[in-house]
Amino acid sequence: MRFNNPPVNTLSLEFLTELVISLEKLENDKSFRGLIITSDRPGVFSAGLDLREMCGRSPAHYAEYWKAVQELWLRLYQSSLVLVAAINGACPAGGCLMALTSDHRILADNPKYSIGLNETLLGIVAPFWFKDTLVNTIGHRAAERALQLGLLFPPAQALQVGIVDQVVPEERVQSVALSAIAQWMAIPDHARQLTKAMMRKATASRLITHRDEDVQNFVSFISRDSIQKSLQLYLERLKQKKG
Amino acid sequence: MRFNNPPVNTLSLEFLTELVISLEKLENDKSFRGLIITSDRPGVFSAGLDLREMCGRSPAHYAEYWKAVQELWLRLYQSSLVLVAAINGACPAGGCLMALTSDHRILADNPKYSIGLNETLLGIVAPFWFKDTLVNTIGHRAAERALQLGLLFPPAQALQVGIVDQVVPEERVQSVALSAIAQWMAIPDHARQLTKAMMRKATASRLITHRDEDVQNFVSFISRDSIQKSLQLYLERLKQKKG
Amino acid sequence: MRFNNPPVNTLSLEFLTELVISLEKLENDKSFRGLIITSDRPGVFSAGLDLREMCGRSPAHYAEYWKAVQELWLRLYQSSLVLVAAINGACPAGGCLMALTSDHRILADNPKYSIGLNETLLGIVAPFWFKDTLVNTIGHRAAERALQLGLLFPPAQALQVGIVDQVVPEERVQSVALSAIAQWMAIPDHARQLTKAMMRKATASRLITHRDEDVQNFVSFISRDSIQKSLQLYLERLKQKKG
Repeated sequence: MRFNNPPVNTLSLEFLTELVISLEKLENDKSFRGLIITSDRPGVFSAGLDLREMCGRSPAHYAEYWKAVQELWLRLYQSSLVLVAAINGACPAGGCLMALTSDHRILADNPKYSIGLNETLLGIVAPFWFKDTLVNTIGHRAAERALQLGLLFPPAQALQVGIVDQVVPEERVQSVALSAIAQWMAIPDHARQLTKAMMRKATASRLITHRDEDVQNFVSFISRDSIQKSLQLYLERLKQKKG
Repeated sequence: MRFNNPPVNTLSLEFLTELVISLEKLENDKSFRGLIITSDRPGVFSAGLDLREMCGRSPAHYAEYWKAVQELWLRLYQSSLVLVAAINGACPAGGCLMALTSDHRILADNPKYSIGLNETLLGIVAPFWFKDTLVNTIGHRAAERALQLGLLFPPAQALQVGIVDQVVPEERVQSVALSAIAQWMAIPDHARQLTKAMMRKATASRLITHRDEDVQNFVSFISRDSIQKSLQLYLERLKQKKG
Repeated sequence: MRFNNPPVNTLSLEFLTELVISLEKLENDKSFRGLIITSDRPGVFSAGLDLREMCGRSPAHYAEYWKAVQELWLRLYQSSLVLVAAINGACPAGGCLMALTSDHRILADNPKYSIGLNETLLGIVAPFWFKDTLVNTIGHRAAERALQLGLLFPPAQALQVGIVDQVVPEERVQSVALSAIAQWMAIPDHARQLTKAMMRKATASRLITHRDEDVQNFVSFISRDSIQKSLQLYLERLKQKKG
């Protein structure tokens, strides 16, 4: 699956909805056992959540958007497919979240491609299920530090902290991803799927149980004047940069 | 305690029952404070659970067998003794589980001696308490990967991932085990035992609370036609290998 | 905040009460965003809990003392301030606990300055919330080993196991602490505080929910004849050493 939502694979509501529908189809197609997620956009895996969906809209829109983000995570994290992330570009925030749901993560060795949950830098807070996914991957202490400081790890550090499994030369990312998925698909499917479900059930259930509450938290947090102002400022600065 | 159930210390129902009785005696003997578990069989610590107890038998037999496996784990994991595993041979599946219940693990540096929970390779699934024991030892992410891929770690990798504490030349395994147990027994017994119980209580309680359910899960899973067929195939191939 | 309770910053009831009051003031002072905790006593960060408060006193005194220890931990662990520990001396037991509540730990590179929860060596047991704090920092397996053996890690080992974040030459501890706190204070305060609270809430809640029970456990454990005798012996040996 090659992400292609110009310019930087931002997770707009429309793009999220497309991803969820595609995943559902693949999940139901019994001839399909594994999936490599990667980017068709040069230099960016995914820029993450779409701030334009969180800024200057109605509470109903925020709620709809957040439900779509939850839905994507639940589908990816609980997927019965083998998921391999071939991370061929920058991978902040929501992009990192998608990578973290994979079974195996390969990062291109380019100092511009860093990966992490950098929400605090924008003055916002990763929700508890982003946090749980990160803790499951790199442990409690490293997650506490990374989330508070909004750390984006360049390749060598990313490998060391364990947020990715492999760092390889940029031109080899896709071939290494193919080797990795072959290794995972060599395991009897049913046993692998039950094992994956066992490992991830408690974490997924936490969101499933608190889903509405989590939407309400997001809507009331994002609707605050102070948050709206800082998001607007950030978006304007982004526009100027491009202009 | 030297395992000696020829040829490869497979955990048959009879062997499990003997182990549990021996452990109970040692636990009640107040002159006894520590125990080194090791193998008397060349090249194998323990081959793990006995597939012959899980294949072509009655549901009642499966239930009896599984209760014995649970019982061994509960006794080892909650033992008030210092347990040191001197792993002087291959250590897959149930053999690895026993090693994981120890306070300290020493693996002989022989590339043939690998250690891990490789259940998925046989098309079966490690139960949640095998998983919990592994997560407690090597963390969530490494356990997720190891369990899904059914990884057997050779010595250098075993040390790196933390599934063992030391790798030493084969001829030194027993002497290093004696030094290790001396270090652990130098700690005031009562404080050490209370600390160990505190560390392990939540994990042990999870099985104690769900014990019957876990037996039922095992019996219904192992009784499936597809599982029985794949176990039979595997056993026949093993016989041919030996023949 | 420079600890100065001669000779070795032992956490007496009086010193604990002072610390809690100071922390409360700083927490309520909106001009205050971060705090470096360090020692004014040469060679010792803090010797930890005061055994004289636990020996030869009334159950009511033990209860009062333990509530004060709980209170200090709850304030430090849930502090909305950035806390950096500049560990410029030995850091056993309760001293280690304070360091573990910080956001960032810097240890002076002096082989005499070791850090750890060494309670078992005195025949006593770290309570579950000391254990939880350590597990959150270094993981379950390393904590199980360190707590049972009462390990005190010298600088290189402390860094390797992750009980501290940096080891630096003794004369640079304070300047490195200033750089570290500047890095943490560069993050938008509100987002950082919410993220910290999210990471630590479950652990803090466990004590808050079981606070009275934990006091009762401590009082009944510490009142035992065997524990009192071993503490008395230890205190007498300490006096002789000094004499």
